Amino acid sequence: MNVLVLNSGSSSLKYQLFNMKTEDVLAKGLVERIGLDKSVITHKPTGKAKKELTQDLNNHKEALKIVLNLLVDKEAGVISSMDEINAVGHRVVHGAEEFSESALVTDEVYKAIEKCEVLAPLHNPANKMGISACSEIMPNTPQVAVFDTAFHQTMDATSYLYAIPYKYYEKYGVRRYGFHGTSHKYVFYKTAEFLGKKPEDLKVITCHIGNGASITAIDGGKVVDTSMGFTPLEGLVMGTRCGDLDPAILPFLMNNEDLTAKEMDKVLNKESGLVGLSGISSDMRDILKAAAEGDEKANNALNVYTYRVLKYIGAYTAALNGVDAVVFTAGIGENSVPVRKKIVEKLGWLGVQLDEEANKVMGEEKIISTTDSKVKVLVMPTDEEYMIAKDTYEIVKKHNI
Amino acid sequence: MNVLVLNSGSSSLKYQLFNMKTEDVLAKGLVERIGLDKSVITHKPTGKAKKELTQDLNNHKEALKIVLNLLVDKEAGVISSMDEINAVGHRVVHGAEEFSESALVTDEVYKAIEKCEVLAPLHNPANKMGISACSEIMPNTPQVAVFDTAFHQTMDATSYLYAIPYKYYEKYGVRRYGFHGTSHKYVFYKTAEFLGKKPEDLKVITCHIGNGASITAIDGGKVVDTSMGFTPLEGLVMGTRCGDLDPAILPFLMNNEDLTAKEMDKVLNKESGLVGLSGISSDMRDILKAAAEGDEKANNALNVYTYRVLKYIGAYTAALNGVDAVVFTAGIGENSVPVRKKIVEKLGWLGVQLDEEANKVMGEEKIISTTDSKVKVLVMPTDEEYMIAKDTYEIVKKHNI
Repeated sequence: MNVLVLNSGSSSLKYQLFNMKTEDVLAKGLVERIGLDKSVITHKPTGKAKKELTQDLNNHKEALKIVLNLLVDKEAGVISSMDEINAVGHRVVHGAEEFSESALVTDEVYKAIEKCEVLAPLHNPANKMGISACSEIMPNTPQVAVFDTAFHQTMDATSYLYAIPYKYYEKYGVRRYGFHGTSHKYVFYKTAEFLGKKPEDLKVITCHIGNGASITAIDGGKVVDTSMGFTPLEGLVMGTRCGDLDPAILPFLMNNEDLTAKEMDKVLNKESGLVGLSGISSDMRDILKAAAEGDEKANNALNVYTYRVLKYIGAYTAALNGVDAVVFTAGIGENSVPVRKKIVEKLGWLGVQLDEEANKVMGEEKIISTTDSKVKVLVMPTDEEYMIAKDTYEIVKKHNI
Repeated sequence: MNVLVLNSGSSSLKYQLFNMKTEDVLAKGLVERIGLDKSVITHKPTGKAKKELTQDLNNHKEALKIVLNLLVDKEAGVISSMDEINAVGHRVVHGAEEFSESALVTDEVYKAIEKCEVLAPLHNPANKMGISACSEIMPNTPQVAVFDTAFHQTMDATSYLYAIPYKYYEKYGVRRYGFHGTSHKYVFYKTAEFLGKKPEDLKVITCHIGNGASITAIDGGKVVDTSMGFTPLEGLVMGTRCGDLDPAILPFLMNNEDLTAKEMDKVLNKESGLVGLSGISSDMRDILKAAAEGDEKANNALNVYTYRVLKYIGAYTAALNGVDAVVFTAGIGENSVPVRKKIVEKLGWLGVQLDEEANKVMGEEKIISTTDSKVKVLVMPTDEEYMIAKDTYEIVKKHNI
């Protein structure tokens, strides 16, 4: 069974085709600038040369058509006909309280995704365009929606309620949802497997730190807490996002800088985080380089960034009443040796000592704490696309489609 | 030497007169509704009957005059003339980066306090009125300003910087300041004394939880981090304040509820916290009662409140790389047996077990963890007024006045 995984952005379409029997990726690629002139398509079939095309694509339907053409192309293709795509799995950012797991797309589910749009006005409409495009082009292929928020729906009210008037929760659903759920879930179960432990016996803190970043406390597969909240702005410091902040700073700055709410939101989402503090870059590699060269603001940015992760590890150790493993994943978590070092070196209070040699790993699963450490610290590469394919496969199988 | 301690609010004046030789309180009281009609004066001389007066008082100068009259009054008084007040100590809320310790009030210091007004527009002007009143009525008596923020000035940039554009720090001083500093400092040194330890060897987390609430990580007398930030809104859940929040909630609610920045600020400062979540009360005693009677929202409020404290204890244990003592103080911290129980019961990960019997204490210094607990948990009553008197006494002595 082959599953096509789609991640639709407002002007982009990422895809991966999986053979679920062998769990191999057959091809993957990316369409950019959809709806603008000169869309760019980058297609990479496994074992064959990469192919790049430039073409005007007006919408996601046209983009999907070209992707399907490439997948069955004589040269660049990996399957002989569209019929070999047995199901499509879609990444959907927001499932609100409607979805605590992945769902077969039906009219009802589609409408529910639409209902969640108010909470993710930038993301859900794009995800929906991907679903619509599939419904038109391949109406008989089952589709599954996999939500970024679903895994976190296991949280209790104690963790998801904010201390604001309760009516805002009732009226708009203002609460903590959490994101990156697919990644946190994948990494949690992979960690259990890797450590040879039963997932239900395991307390894990998963640190998904990439350009976006979130950290999750998981007890036996149940999310106890997660750092992203109502939106992906809360929690850790990110490339361009501020993370945690005294909320009173917003009215202060709006007043003093004469900013609208929308402009303020943009400052905190697009001009803050690493780039805001350093004035240099949102990319951790640039920050590390500048800090090593003695740039004080870059050094501040690095310190604030890693200190925030450290504090969350502490908070979530308390939330879990102890922890078995702390796991690093995503771009920075998997690859940044110095960032991990700066964090793990300060986990002495947890009985953890960094194994400097092991910590040289990049992008591979590995334990980076010493063998006598009381809590295991690991690197575990994430694979959200695989997780989407797997959920899609299982749901389609369950429904006997 | 007698020291008069003044805490001036916008329409109130709290006072305590200390004999610093015996460290006794000679009298204390409160003037309310200053500038409104029918101001109320409540005066309590130690060992004598309480006295209540109602009188129109137009400003802080008139309020101070009546306080001084009461202090030297034949019946209700405790000193025979104003000359027996050797110094006045003022609580000043915001000292920004100008003041890392208490300061003898000079023209320069007065101007610096004025400069900090932009950061505490509700508090510093009132504090200043208290100082001006003293300068006029008792021009030869030395005055000392004791700042809520001063103790926290030992924090590093790693803790005080927010991940927002750096220019806002440079332009407006947007950073973490922290408040309740006088209380955290007092409780830290009292704890060292009580435990018979050198302060410089001690890592303590002080939980000042009253109607306002903040928590501070202190290493050897140096503040490592504190939960209140740029303003007293950040951090723990309070009676009417939200504490930590996804910053993106503000633009979302402002947009959907058509609120100005000022109105939003008011919702988060005055209508949130315990009262917002419960819809019942900002007073923890009412919440406990309602929760015990099965009210679900009150129960949520209680859970969110105590869970937030728990998470901060975790975060600050990480920040301190281990902790020797966790200390509860202020209204709820000193007196609420069930709130402490709910928090301390979840400190198993720290090697702490609650001593249920010891935890029955109210308003007295006591260890409430079992003797074999790895970290000591204590109740330690705070005394900000004494701390202000002590700082005032020492500064006046140092200046040979």
